[in-house]
Amino acid sequence: MTPALHDSPFLRACRREPVPTTPIWLLRQAGRYQSWYQEIRARVPFLDLCKTPDLVAEVTTRAVEQLGVDAAILFSDILLIVEPLGQELSFEKGDGPAIANPVRSGKDVDRLRTPDVGELGFVFEAVRRTRAALPATIPLIGFCGAPFTVAAYMCEGSTSRDFLLTKALMVRDEGAWHALLERITMASIDYLNGQIDAGVQAVQLFDSWVGALGPADYRRYVLPHVRRLVQGLRPLVPVIHFGTGTAALLELMKEAGGDVIGLDFRVELDEAWQRLGDVAVMGNLDPAILMATPEVIRARARRILDQAAFRPGHIFNLGHGIFQETPVENAIALVDAVHELSAR
Amino acid sequence: MTPALHDSPFLRACRREPVPTTPIWLLRQAGRYQSWYQEIRARVPFLDLCKTPDLVAEVTTRAVEQLGVDAAILFSDILLIVEPLGQELSFEKGDGPAIANPVRSGKDVDRLRTPDVGELGFVFEAVRRTRAALPATIPLIGFCGAPFTVAAYMCEGSTSRDFLLTKALMVRDEGAWHALLERITMASIDYLNGQIDAGVQAVQLFDSWVGALGPADYRRYVLPHVRRLVQGLRPLVPVIHFGTGTAALLELMKEAGGDVIGLDFRVELDEAWQRLGDVAVMGNLDPAILMATPEVIRARARRILDQAAFRPGHIFNLGHGIFQETPVENAIALVDAVHELSAR
Repeated sequence: MTPALHDSPFLRACRREPVPTTPIWLLRQAGRYQSWYQEIRARVPFLDLCKTPDLVAEVTTRAVEQLGVDAAILFSDILLIVEPLGQELSFEKGDGPAIANPVRSGKDVDRLRTPDVGELGFVFEAVRRTRAALPATIPLIGFCGAPFTVAAYMCEGSTSRDFLLTKALMVRDEGAWHALLERITMASIDYLNGQIDAGVQAVQLFDSWVGALGPADYRRYVLPHVRRLVQGLRPLVPVIHFGTGTAALLELMKEAGGDVIGLDFRVELDEAWQRLGDVAVMGNLDPAILMATPEVIRARARRILDQAAFRPGHIFNLGHGIFQETPVENAIALVDAVHELSAR
Repeated sequence: MTPALHDSPFLRACRREPVPTTPIWLLRQAGRYQSWYQEIRARVPFLDLCKTPDLVAEVTTRAVEQLGVDAAILFSDILLIVEPLGQELSFEKGDGPAIANPVRSGKDVDRLRTPDVGELGFVFEAVRRTRAALPATIPLIGFCGAPFTVAAYMCEGSTSRDFLLTKALMVRDEGAWHALLERITMASIDYLNGQIDAGVQAVQLFDSWVGALGPADYRRYVLPHVRRLVQGLRPLVPVIHFGTGTAALLELMKEAGGDVIGLDFRVELDEAWQRLGDVAVMGNLDPAILMATPEVIRARARRILDQAAFRPGHIFNLGHGIFQETPVENAIALVDAVHELSAR
């Protein structure tokens, strides 16, 4: 890693070192709220975009340039991994995922393929091209879905509100459940290590749906797999561990692993950090605030910065992905406000 | 109130008095998971059912008889109140609500009617007939939606995942937001007092969607209205205050009011009760557990009872509404297990 990257505010914050200004990036910072992204998507379907390294590099880099954020996150999707696992993935209009052959039983788990993440070589190539396209000072974040969230999609076959099919497998056939999560975990280790080898400076686990579980279920059905995943990664880059609806799970997420714990907007950052102790935190503005005026956005950004109180180890972010209804100028106003208000 | 009702396990638990066995009822205990309910719905649309007192009494009572639960909850819907407020409500197939004229601005708030809850007289009549139809030992719970949740439906016009339109009004026009919640609150006070006058033995506030907010936003945009609502009720019956996704909000919910705080399944009951202190609690089995075997259901019920440890003031319930996919015999198995395992 070059000194410019190593000493970037984002990576310094991941290591809980002092920074000149609080680094910020935005969950889903490249996407449909940007007109240039919509133009690309008008001619390229979502999955094709994810599988075209040059376009991934373009989209990833352009978001960084437009917003002025301190880190890039590879444009991709957490569900790409279900294809090497033997599932048929598609994205319908509105970008909602659909899996043609969801997992509903132990037999379905047995039928999954032993994945060769080489099939995701286009992602590794996208990492290389994106790294080459990015400014030398901007770290690139790779990612994958965390085991519960990937399993939830694999079981439900689509987005779900209550994850009944997922939980039904979990509580009816615990052996099949752990076999499924183990498969996802082993594939995710290879997948993230491939991204690390290809040149990302950090990786993030997205446990978007883990808030569907209470603490005891998380400990029993999820935590061992996340821990194994984190421990299986090459210890070369920081790991961000993010989930939503996790107000009751934060300590367990830390126990599972990660250098940075990502907070959603349902907790107060200072209270959450107090509970977590010696770990960096990322977050946690409600993305709905970006629908307000620049003055409100600035005031809300200041409130979070005040809670972080310049303690080393805070990365500013939204507490959930940016909405497609967001005015781009409001996202830029947030980034500018965080940089200005946090200048030491 | 008759002595039989006053001394029922459910009402004793609401008052944190010792009970012979832990009382239990189930969120949405009457509904589509029951074949007899499906038969009624095959000939009566949902909204018509809610507006037909004799059918409400039948559905409410039958669920109690079938399950053997310790309390009845009036069969109704939290959205009935939007009609006297001037909105056009319908229920599409799948029971999803739709509001033809949602609130999107301060002008829309101004256009709402000053409600006369006498328009909901069919609910009060349903309370009277249900009370007459129920066993003399079974308390009847009335309810309404809490201000945030009703406002969220009124703004979104339907079920939502992220409540962007609701929050947009909240952060763009705080005056309009508070005017909207005040209108809902005043109508809800009249509505619940009407139910109390008609003969319910307890009332519940459903803040189903309040977990979309963090603590600071709850305190600023919601808490004053809930407090006013609770303080406006005739002090004759206990108030249950329930929400989901509330792991970070529990103390504030208690501060807002209620004799019983309803817990969803995302928290551990013992930890949540510890945080809450001197108040009764209701909860909190994940309704997905009812998809498992009776042995698993029993083990999970035991775990929650162990956490409650026979402290006075625990009402057993699910942490969310029962799923329509639930085998009725599993719901009955849960009720039986709770009664058997909790016999003092």
